[in-house]
Amino acid sequence: MEYTARELSEILNCQLEGDPEVRIRGISEIQSAGEGDLTFLTNPKYRKFLKRTRASAIISGEKLDVNITQLICREPYVAFARVLRIFYPEKLPPPGISDRAVVSESARIGRDVYIGENAFIGDNTVIDDEVKVFPNVYIGENCFIGKGTVIFPNVTVCRGVRIGEFVRIHSGAVIGSDGFGYAYSRESGKVEKVPQVGSVRIGDFVEIGSNATVDRGTIGDTVIGSGTKIDNLVQIGHNVKIGENCFIVSQVGISGSTNIGSNVTLAGQVGVAGHIEIADNVTVAAKSGIAGSIRKPGTYGGIPAVPVEEWRKEVVILRKLPEIYRAIRKLLRR
Amino acid sequence: MEYTARELSEILNCQLEGDPEVRIRGISEIQSAGEGDLTFLTNPKYRKFLKRTRASAIISGEKLDVNITQLICREPYVAFARVLRIFYPEKLPPPGISDRAVVSESARIGRDVYIGENAFIGDNTVIDDEVKVFPNVYIGENCFIGKGTVIFPNVTVCRGVRIGEFVRIHSGAVIGSDGFGYAYSRESGKVEKVPQVGSVRIGDFVEIGSNATVDRGTIGDTVIGSGTKIDNLVQIGHNVKIGENCFIVSQVGISGSTNIGSNVTLAGQVGVAGHIEIADNVTVAAKSGIAGSIRKPGTYGGIPAVPVEEWRKEVVILRKLPEIYRAIRKLLRR
Amino acid sequence: MEYTARELSEILNCQLEGDPEVRIRGISEIQSAGEGDLTFLTNPKYRKFLKRTRASAIISGEKLDVNITQLICREPYVAFARVLRIFYPEKLPPPGISDRAVVSESARIGRDVYIGENAFIGDNTVIDDEVKVFPNVYIGENCFIGKGTVIFPNVTVCRGVRIGEFVRIHSGAVIGSDGFGYAYSRESGKVEKVPQVGSVRIGDFVEIGSNATVDRGTIGDTVIGSGTKIDNLVQIGHNVKIGENCFIVSQVGISGSTNIGSNVTLAGQVGVAGHIEIADNVTVAAKSGIAGSIRKPGTYGGIPAVPVEEWRKEVVILRKLPEIYRAIRKLLRR
Repeated sequence: MEYTARELSEILNCQLEGDPEVRIRGISEIQSAGEGDLTFLTNPKYRKFLKRTRASAIISGEKLDVNITQLICREPYVAFARVLRIFYPEKLPPPGISDRAVVSESARIGRDVYIGENAFIGDNTVIDDEVKVFPNVYIGENCFIGKGTVIFPNVTVCRGVRIGEFVRIHSGAVIGSDGFGYAYSRESGKVEKVPQVGSVRIGDFVEIGSNATVDRGTIGDTVIGSGTKIDNLVQIGHNVKIGENCFIVSQVGISGSTNIGSNVTLAGQVGVAGHIEIADNVTVAAKSGIAGSIRKPGTYGGIPAVPVEEWRKEVVILRKLPEIYRAIRKLLRR
Repeated sequence: MEYTARELSEILNCQLEGDPEVRIRGISEIQSAGEGDLTFLTNPKYRKFLKRTRASAIISGEKLDVNITQLICREPYVAFARVLRIFYPEKLPPPGISDRAVVSESARIGRDVYIGENAFIGDNTVIDDEVKVFPNVYIGENCFIGKGTVIFPNVTVCRGVRIGEFVRIHSGAVIGSDGFGYAYSRESGKVEKVPQVGSVRIGDFVEIGSNATVDRGTIGDTVIGSGTKIDNLVQIGHNVKIGENCFIVSQVGISGSTNIGSNVTLAGQVGVAGHIEIADNVTVAAKSGIAGSIRKPGTYGGIPAVPVEEWRKEVVILRKLPEIYRAIRKLLRR
Repeated sequence: MEYTARELSEILNCQLEGDPEVRIRGISEIQSAGEGDLTFLTNPKYRKFLKRTRASAIISGEKLDVNITQLICREPYVAFARVLRIFYPEKLPPPGISDRAVVSESARIGRDVYIGENAFIGDNTVIDDEVKVFPNVYIGENCFIGKGTVIFPNVTVCRGVRIGEFVRIHSGAVIGSDGFGYAYSRESGKVEKVPQVGSVRIGDFVEIGSNATVDRGTIGDTVIGSGTKIDNLVQIGHNVKIGENCFIVSQVGISGSTNIGSNVTLAGQVGVAGHIEIADNVTVAAKSGIAGSIRKPGTYGGIPAVPVEEWRKEVVILRKLPEIYRAIRKLLRR
């Protein structure tokens, strides 16, 4: 595959600076790019590599002081995503159902579906058109998997789960296993399991990371809105509702029955208490703990989380505590 | 399935208020319940939905000011768990061993066992009566799986693990893989692996969540006591001992050789250091870090964890730090 | 298997105290050892069991005041690791390719390889000599698995991943699934997926824990250096580079494009921000959050992490905050 810088500037709708005829044959990181490579600058931390890059062209958001051809884009990271798709289109297995797949006779399989070796499809489950089910996936009974969805190897989808269109579920994720619900009886002196009889509904264009877990509802469903992206090793408790276009970063845990709005970002290792509400357009800093509802859009941080400016002040002063402590002792001595 | 409120009040041993003949056909959350539904109120946060609920009856712990039939129970959450089991009995696969399961000739399989497609049962492993092994499960050699235990899809049980009766192990959990043990040799300049030659013993009525990991002992066993419930994505290190009826909530990590008593609750994302002791009846707040032994029952929180009242004071004062800092600077200036 | 203490002292190159002819038939923890057992003392916390141990011999780093035979070693934990290997050599399945494995015709399989039932090996993948692939493993196309590597059940290795020699990948780990990369376009109002077209390269003698996840690079590779050990449930983001002989303890998360040096230890539940650098010989305390680059070797702790002495002072003073607060209020009232 080969494009000229001019061709790419037209496809990506970018402004071109420099030689329009330079030929691009691949895409590389700025540190390692060579002749024929297109690179990109979207994070200022990498500006230091600009001088020495041997790339033939660069995507950026502004005109740079470099000698190579530039593709100046209003949304350079979006342009980068698109050009990656042009040079490296994803190769997924072609349609076809392996004779080593285990497909229930009562399952309904759409057109152009791929089901790999040793995948299991349970009774009455519907697999819509163009779905890809990789080897060693387990999909229980009474599920619905929407058009164009891709389920990577070793995923488990439990009974009754409904998944939308063009969803991607990465390896090892478990969708719809039992939530953590128990009732302690003083009278019997025993812990009794609360049956988890709800299910999980996932919207369209959702992505769920490797080894993430999404529990089924106790009664009613756990719901993940369209466009929401969930990273690896995230835990979503029973009856959680997440809105649209959220980013739930790796190792976040969301406790049961919490409602999260749309356009919410929870950074890595955040923990969220159960039975609370988080408004639309909230962002929470990594490692924070959210103990109560957050009703105003904005950025929050800390354990327990507060508006980020307050949290930053706390951290700064925390660093000064030894000094403060000495000052106080001096004052007290007087 | 249909019961009258009177019938349910007798089964659940609850006091009945209102129409005893109202017919119940299902169970729903208070927000979404409709005619014919039984709902419940066990968390005061949901009291606000009481006025508008369209449920036909409600389980609660006290008499409510509502117009619908009430089932007033001493242990309303226990009653809720039981009535769920009545209306939605769990459907597990019937006994039978798939001819696509891989079962060693030396394995001993009890009566009324289910072993699904592509499940693997290793040499000399004993599967007791009424066990369910779902598709794509791997159980290594020399294991023992007690009566009535259910192992969901894609679980891995490594060699030599012993599991009690009526245990549930959810998808993707890994029981008995190597602990994290290495010895650095200055002389050879190399990191040497410490062989992990112990195993794992799990009591009865234990539940282990999706993608949780329980490491085998280095020598001697990792032990999980009867009735203990472990949530998704929890890590239990090698040679950890956990007592009975504990709740280990999602994403908790317990380091090697730590002993945890009975009736202990570790809330979400708690971390516990290695080689320490935690007494019976200890509860630890979410996200806390336990650095040393806890010898007294009670509730603890913080990083490192302290008695919860101390931790709460710290948090309150932390919030006042900017104000304190200003006051001190003022004092110093005088 | 049986050795005399004298034979073991020669094999392990240790000094012998006491009866050289005592016969050792197994290895046990100090609390539970019996007659014929060798035990060890490497952690002073277990010194309290010395008096009562019924072991026949003990490995330690110094002469102890006990009546049993002693093997006194300069590196007692290394000696312990080695003697475990002597008494309990690992039993792995013998070479052989199950006729129920799914092996692409274009895959190249070396000598003395084991491939278990229902394992999947994709097109053009190379499996070098003496590799063990357990049942239910998925290895995608164009991978390379180096000599002597062991891949335990239910692991997923995605397309194009390169793994070195004598690596161990534990059950449920996912190597090479998509990183968490998205570009939000204001113009289209949509979140677009950034294709993840790089891969993962893993050195020699690496160990990766159960249910750990290592994402493929966006462009360019995620790299894990030789000798590095990664514990269960760890998340390694796209384009992370980790040097040699690091210990990444359970539930650590490392965000994308971060570079970690060699001989780095990240204790349990540490979180590391993206696009930063961590120098060689850095150790980070459990539960810490690393927000910026660490350029000097040493030990760090806290959220955000600072040199450990500073962090310890903070923690001590944090505990005194209520007292400080009262003192200040007193001063202010005067």
